[in-house]
Amino acid sequence: MSAAPGIAVLAGGVGGSRFVRGLLHGLRAEWPAAAGSPEEGMPGSGTAASVTVIANTGDDLWLAGLRVCPDLDSIMYALGGANDEERGWGRRGESERVSAELTAYGVGWPWFTLGDLDLGTHIARSSWLRDGLPLSEATARLCARWNPGVTLLPATDDEAETLVTVADEAGGTRQLHFEEWWVRHRAALPALAFTQNNVERARPAPGVLEAIAEADVVLFAPSNPVVSIGTILGIPGIADAVRQTAAPVVGISPIIGGAVVRGMADACLSAIGVETSAVAVGAHYGARGLPSAGLLGAGLPGAGLLGADLPGAGLLDGWLVDSTDAAAAESAAGGPLAGIRTLARPLWFHTVEETAAIAADALALAARSRP
Amino acid sequence: MSAAPGIAVLAGGVGGSRFVRGLLHGLRAEWPAAAGSPEEGMPGSGTAASVTVIANTGDDLWLAGLRVCPDLDSIMYALGGANDEERGWGRRGESERVSAELTAYGVGWPWFTLGDLDLGTHIARSSWLRDGLPLSEATARLCARWNPGVTLLPATDDEAETLVTVADEAGGTRQLHFEEWWVRHRAALPALAFTQNNVERARPAPGVLEAIAEADVVLFAPSNPVVSIGTILGIPGIADAVRQTAAPVVGISPIIGGAVVRGMADACLSAIGVETSAVAVGAHYGARGLPSAGLLGAGLPGAGLLGADLPGAGLLDGWLVDSTDAAAAESAAGGPLAGIRTLARPLWFHTVEETAAIAADALALAARSRP
Repeated sequence: MSAAPGIAVLAGGVGGSRFVRGLLHGLRAEWPAAAGSPEEGMPGSGTAASVTVIANTGDDLWLAGLRVCPDLDSIMYALGGANDEERGWGRRGESERVSAELTAYGVGWPWFTLGDLDLGTHIARSSWLRDGLPLSEATARLCARWNPGVTLLPATDDEAETLVTVADEAGGTRQLHFEEWWVRHRAALPALAFTQNNVERARPAPGVLEAIAEADVVLFAPSNPVVSIGTILGIPGIADAVRQTAAPVVGISPIIGGAVVRGMADACLSAIGVETSAVAVGAHYGARGLPSAGLLGAGLPGAGLLGADLPGAGLLDGWLVDSTDAAAAESAAGGPLAGIRTLARPLWFHTVEETAAIAADALALAARSRP
Repeated sequence: MSAAPGIAVLAGGVGGSRFVRGLLHGLRAEWPAAAGSPEEGMPGSGTAASVTVIANTGDDLWLAGLRVCPDLDSIMYALGGANDEERGWGRRGESERVSAELTAYGVGWPWFTLGDLDLGTHIARSSWLRDGLPLSEATARLCARWNPGVTLLPATDDEAETLVTVADEAGGTRQLHFEEWWVRHRAALPALAFTQNNVERARPAPGVLEAIAEADVVLFAPSNPVVSIGTILGIPGIADAVRQTAAPVVGISPIIGGAVVRGMADACLSAIGVETSAVAVGAHYGARGLPSAGLLGAGLPGAGLLGADLPGAGLLDGWLVDSTDAAAAESAAGGPLAGIRTLARPLWFHTVEETAAIAADALALAARSRP
């Protein structure tokens, strides 16, 4: 790429934001902001490259009458330098006075604490949503304060929340909101299925399809393949845009040597019958141009059932795996990963420099993986 | 009264809550809770008497997507022992972290700070209102935590906010919400009129008319006669209930020797053409049984225009004035205060004991003022 690239990243919250921060760090060095440009010397990206982050909104929920968007906020805070580095989520210097009040009134979820500073974001967003603004515009207004250095888009302006089906005591099943399963039960209740509620009526937020179509590179962050990347791809039209873009599409594996890098993605993968391995997840995304078992989501029986039709989904040109998975990826190149160019390198990242190096390799892989 | 009385009090926020606290203090001594009753030894009223407070809701507003009810909350906090005694309003130990966030996002009114603890109340209430609960039920749920020792009722479950008409720069007029006029402009913009927005569609909250009809005594707290007591009486049906109750109706003057006890009631009185004097305010409420100039509010031309038809409103049996106003009240007994039994005593109150003595005299005046 001779000019500064346009990059579209599909991302979940904590892992996604750390990946994008590394990506921006590398882009600043490689393609610094032009002298005299608004980005020069400013907080934010400080790069001539343009990055659009398409964030998972499946974790979003109405809680205590407020719209909470965990992944959008994690990305916004982390890129805006306002996140709590130690805890890994939420705002730095957070307190929880309001939450204690809500618990005293029996409002909200006592196990899902909303920090005071964070509540400011939820109240502002909810106020704008009640005024009729779509989530994407509310997000833009919030980002105007934090200057994350990327265009941060929700996958959809519509409410398509992820529900988890689990066994109930009576021998049947019940559904609970993803956040209840994830935070309250720490993903320990065996998940029987994930459903995107009302996804058949959801549309990509303005700018999402354009960002994918016009990008020079499309990246899948090393986020949860089921409930982060999967829910983004589940919004009708987004998977098609990924399949049809002229840009190379490269994913970064969230699985290293059979274990998840962070979070509890294994509990999600097993629910949809995908092995917790870099090869299996790469194969789950599937090679572009190869026959697809079906469109993700829209209009099919089982619409909204995550994972039901992702195998053979035909999404990837390149797949970045950890060095420990190099042999497996190579041996799968003629089988499950056929048609996907793989590259192996250390994927553990602790520092922003390490993450920047991973992102740089993902971009290099993309350059060699043009469809 | 041989049995513990049932008392209905029409009240605004800060002054109303201080008055009712004194009233309860006296009732506890006079009619202690029966042994074995739920009130015995509990926080709350601790009295066998039953008190219903009908609170002004004209100050209520939607702010940052949250329903804020200043008077209801002032009463609830003060009677529940959670109020800030020094400041006179809001919660004790309050902080303002969330408000600073909202200001940074440009949401809400920077001059109308919502405390963090107070926000817990607004979020809980708004959440219940969004779920479809009427304000009266949301208020009951909030009070279940604070145990104010009274039945606290909003005058109405409907939104009938007080608007203030002021001159604009172009030589015309404009309307602003009462709280903007009161808090932001400190009532310094000359008020041309007060309007209860949509009051013609408002109905008394469940229990309001019953409390007035079934009370042994009805009291008007020494609250703002225009924008606190006036707005309660402006809800269609409430003034009629006051006129028709078998109980004596006694008001406590908020004016002492031509000055307001607290707040800026004089700015409100002058807007509706009522002199700032105990006699004028008593005459404004009017004597029960005397010809009334018209029903308050509902269905008349100028409906919702506060003060437009209050003169001769026929509401009072008794009127408690300050000692400094004794002579004026006496000389007005054949004129403006004809038909109203007056009693003069010191009305300045600083301690709860002083307030209790005032309330006791109001009850004594009621006993001598049976209609």
